[in-house]
Amino acid sequence: MAQDLKDTFWKRLDNVTAGLLSTDSERPVPMAPQADRGENAIWFITAAGSAADRASQSGGEARFDVADPKAGLYAVIEGKLDHGSGDKLDDVWNAFAAAWLKDGRDDDSVRLVKMTPHKAEVWATENSASFLWEVAKSNLTDATPEGGEHGRLAF
Amino acid sequence: MAQDLKDTFWKRLDNVTAGLLSTDSERPVPMAPQADRGENAIWFITAAGSAADRASQSGGEARFDVADPKAGLYAVIEGKLDHGSGDKLDDVWNAFAAAWLKDGRDDDSVRLVKMTPHKAEVWATENSASFLWEVAKSNLTDATPEGGEHGRLAF
Repeated sequence: MAQDLKDTFWKRLDNVTAGLLSTDSERPVPMAPQADRGENAIWFITAAGSAADRASQSGGEARFDVADPKAGLYAVIEGKLDHGSGDKLDDVWNAFAAAWLKDGRDDDSVRLVKMTPHKAEVWATENSASFLWEVAKSNLTDATPEGGEHGRLAF
Repeated sequence: MAQDLKDTFWKRLDNVTAGLLSTDSERPVPMAPQADRGENAIWFITAAGSAADRASQSGGEARFDVADPKAGLYAVIEGKLDHGSGDKLDDVWNAFAAAWLKDGRDDDSVRLVKMTPHKAEVWATENSASFLWEVAKSNLTDATPEGGEHGRLAF
């Protein structure tokens, strides 16, 4: 079940346009993720000096929250931030950022941030409101929520 | 501008299926909001004994995070929780919950929670990734981000 949920998590994260990234002692900021299961990473492109960039310089802990009904994914993901290298920036840029960044890859404010998740709580459902009610109610009973999956992942 | 952003915020919140509600000392949980600008409230239906229900009994502070690309709304909303009364539960039930709750209105585990926001940071955009990049970059320059609105609201 945990393996199935992990599959679902990575697949659906691919369809998430943006979530909220919170770094130590900073307010949450919406950021566009690029899921990379092969490297157990979530990549973000940001600007030099942003909260994510600063946290990545010091290897800080972060939380990435997803609440995307269209992607059918709700998740609270905890992990560590690092800054990404130049080669990886090229890859992420080509796969992802070139479509939406008007400025060029050589804009010297472009920064790559890598989040390495260590755990997550995940709710995967296409039928959000009724499933979330079932999850809330399942705390009180032994019933299994219908219409989705809910669980905790370790990475 | 703040008034325009407040209009946008309430209108778009109406289209948000679910976000993450965090109560004091509890983990975030996805919850389906019902926006109610007339009462300056966001209503939630939950089950007796859930974190939201318990926090509402003690008038606790809460944060509701929205990250819904389809609704074009990202927001970090801070406010106070209270429990809702029976009459209001009927209204919210009819407008909202009857569509997705299979169990009846008289299910004795149904609880109504009222969040009264006092402030929020809001990003409203249909063009998430590029706008969020512009916001990140605008911290470094005096440029106004294109493709959306970003600001802080007081209620």
